[in-house]
Amino acid sequence: MQYKKNFYQIKSNDEIFERIIKEKETIGYYNLPFSDTTEIKEYAKTVKQKDIVVIGIGGNSLGTFAIHDFLMHKENSKKLHFLESTDPIDIQRRVKKIDLDHALFIIISKSGTTIETISILKYISSLVTLDSQNTVCVTENDSKLNAYAQANSMKTFEIPKDVGGRFSVFSPVGLLPLAILGLDIDKLLNGCKLVHDSFFAQGEHYSNIMEKARFIVENKNRYNINVVFSYSSLLEGFNKWYVQLWGESLGKINKNGTKQSFTPIGITGPVDQHSFLQLIMEGKRDKTVTFVKIADFKDELTIPDITIPALEELDYVNNIKFKDLINMQADSTIEAIHNLKDIPYDVITIQHQDEENIAKLMFTYELITSIVGSFVQINTYDQPGVEAGKIILKKKLASK
Amino acid sequence: MQYKKNFYQIKSNDEIFERIIKEKETIGYYNLPFSDTTEIKEYAKTVKQKDIVVIGIGGNSLGTFAIHDFLMHKENSKKLHFLESTDPIDIQRRVKKIDLDHALFIIISKSGTTIETISILKYISSLVTLDSQNTVCVTENDSKLNAYAQANSMKTFEIPKDVGGRFSVFSPVGLLPLAILGLDIDKLLNGCKLVHDSFFAQGEHYSNIMEKARFIVENKNRYNINVVFSYSSLLEGFNKWYVQLWGESLGKINKNGTKQSFTPIGITGPVDQHSFLQLIMEGKRDKTVTFVKIADFKDELTIPDITIPALEELDYVNNIKFKDLINMQADSTIEAIHNLKDIPYDVITIQHQDEENIAKLMFTYELITSIVGSFVQINTYDQPGVEAGKIILKKKLASK
Repeated sequence: MQYKKNFYQIKSNDEIFERIIKEKETIGYYNLPFSDTTEIKEYAKTVKQKDIVVIGIGGNSLGTFAIHDFLMHKENSKKLHFLESTDPIDIQRRVKKIDLDHALFIIISKSGTTIETISILKYISSLVTLDSQNTVCVTENDSKLNAYAQANSMKTFEIPKDVGGRFSVFSPVGLLPLAILGLDIDKLLNGCKLVHDSFFAQGEHYSNIMEKARFIVENKNRYNINVVFSYSSLLEGFNKWYVQLWGESLGKINKNGTKQSFTPIGITGPVDQHSFLQLIMEGKRDKTVTFVKIADFKDELTIPDITIPALEELDYVNNIKFKDLINMQADSTIEAIHNLKDIPYDVITIQHQDEENIAKLMFTYELITSIVGSFVQINTYDQPGVEAGKIILKKKLASK
Repeated sequence: MQYKKNFYQIKSNDEIFERIIKEKETIGYYNLPFSDTTEIKEYAKTVKQKDIVVIGIGGNSLGTFAIHDFLMHKENSKKLHFLESTDPIDIQRRVKKIDLDHALFIIISKSGTTIETISILKYISSLVTLDSQNTVCVTENDSKLNAYAQANSMKTFEIPKDVGGRFSVFSPVGLLPLAILGLDIDKLLNGCKLVHDSFFAQGEHYSNIMEKARFIVENKNRYNINVVFSYSSLLEGFNKWYVQLWGESLGKINKNGTKQSFTPIGITGPVDQHSFLQLIMEGKRDKTVTFVKIADFKDELTIPDITIPALEELDYVNNIKFKDLINMQADSTIEAIHNLKDIPYDVITIQHQDEENIAKLMFTYELITSIVGSFVQINTYDQPGVEAGKIILKKKLASK
């Protein structure tokens, strides 16, 4: 009797933990919380420009956008702009809002061969002279973009080779623009550290993250959609970052040639109660739902005690703080889903709207992504599926 | 012998067409293209305010947002604002950008009992006196909001009772703010009419829409995710509108008690080539993909003929127009997906970035939604699943 196999077993939590510890030696993002931020902070202090323009796409902008979106009430007077799409009307709309002669340009690309980034760089170069005074590059040490920076005596910050784009927000990719905007990047890293230490000491974060990842993996064919339902408009950027992290990391063919099935969706409450919620409640049970709540918005805005003639019916909202209303809306939706009994959900509550809390949330999601990837035996950190389109594009452009 | 059954047959196209013709008698959106827009246009001319503030949520804002997003390069000098979330920090960020003393407020709610809308209305009322000069209401004829408007001699525009929120963009809900912003609303309706007439005369649009809806329905359990991949940043608003239309209309329990499984996702190219595309290419085959392209952006922005030292490798983009680059990116992605042979996709090309074209796209999607709903025998136009959460919220608020 012979026996041949082409399938894998879902490993035990201990085995996965061992793999992650081994992975930590070659995958750089795990260690970003322990980076030295001195150089970034020193440089940030010298920036006089008001308009800060990030030229970078995908992982080079989404993380910064997420944290900026969440914390921009804390920033100084600088204004952050992103240039990433090749849509001509979008580019011009955005450029119109920038004072080009008094802007700082942050060019971000690991390689310096990202077609969107370099096309926009060329366009901007035709409008304003880029030099050591108004341009800084964030890139790998031996990249073409680095050579460009050197040739123009521009300041550079390094993206470590072992840190992939969608895991790079806590490298200079995110830290540099965020520091310039006046955010406390040490507090960001501190948030990461708290999660890192608890996870690797197999503390509270370890059990939560492991349990969640295992559930998602064991039920992946039944629940092939993973919804994040964030109850704050400020988390819309986080949602977009999550979609990239999850989709691009886990959308892979695994060791056994099986295409994986984790599809991320990010929605926002209460607005999407008027959109996607109906589908969660009465659609097919193919979704897990993770609620993200902010425990205390630290904001006292209150619905005034006004009776509006003809609209008295809603006087029961009078004197309620908006922060309590939105959290009651979240709790009511959670309760309604709980009552259905057949939708798997969890609730992540972050304490405040500050650097530490957003970093904890994001670093936690990075770890969950790594662990799900490890469970299903894929390479979480590459993106081979996007190469085919790039090759076709190059041919099209060459033949033009 | 006895025979009992609890299942349905997918009807023939002819039967569905007959149902839709019958539905047209009671579902108002089909006939919106033929509305008289005189009153809206007359009113719009009288608006002197620069800041136009829509207070409304879900279907009361998403369609306007989508068209605004797509066409705002064509608008006059007015600025459109939306207030919809109960997030206190979001509200204050948005209110800060409005010149309250010189703004026009458009309050939109079918009933006048939408909790987000009325809470924000109360808050705004505490900041500025709302009266016939600065406020207009869009609502049902016998609603509480209408009574409020009457009591304050405010101008009102009617939402017909038989037009649901997510199908209301071509009623005064969308037409009023868009006309005030200077868009040609007759051209919008004209775009709808072209699709309407072709569909009901069983012309080109009939065959395309029918075929698409039937494919989606027949394969719904295999492909439970319907991705719209729009190749223009200007279609991000359309994507959001699509997610509501599709999710809330089709996320239903059908006649036979079966939960339906159509999950909408909206992504944008080329940005999401760096995010979601990997998942489409190598993830489980659980998605249909619809590409939306703009044939001619009518914009000549060109990548300048600049050689950047160290970055010469990308000189092949020199002299390419951005509109050609983005369309070549779209075509390359389509070709890469085509080559895989096992991902169902279609491509919708809209000609220009103008009123008629966005309306054609949106009205087409409304029809597809209706037909998918008719095929699977659900009520496409209600949203019973969101009631449970509202009832819980009311109880929580009452006990406070």
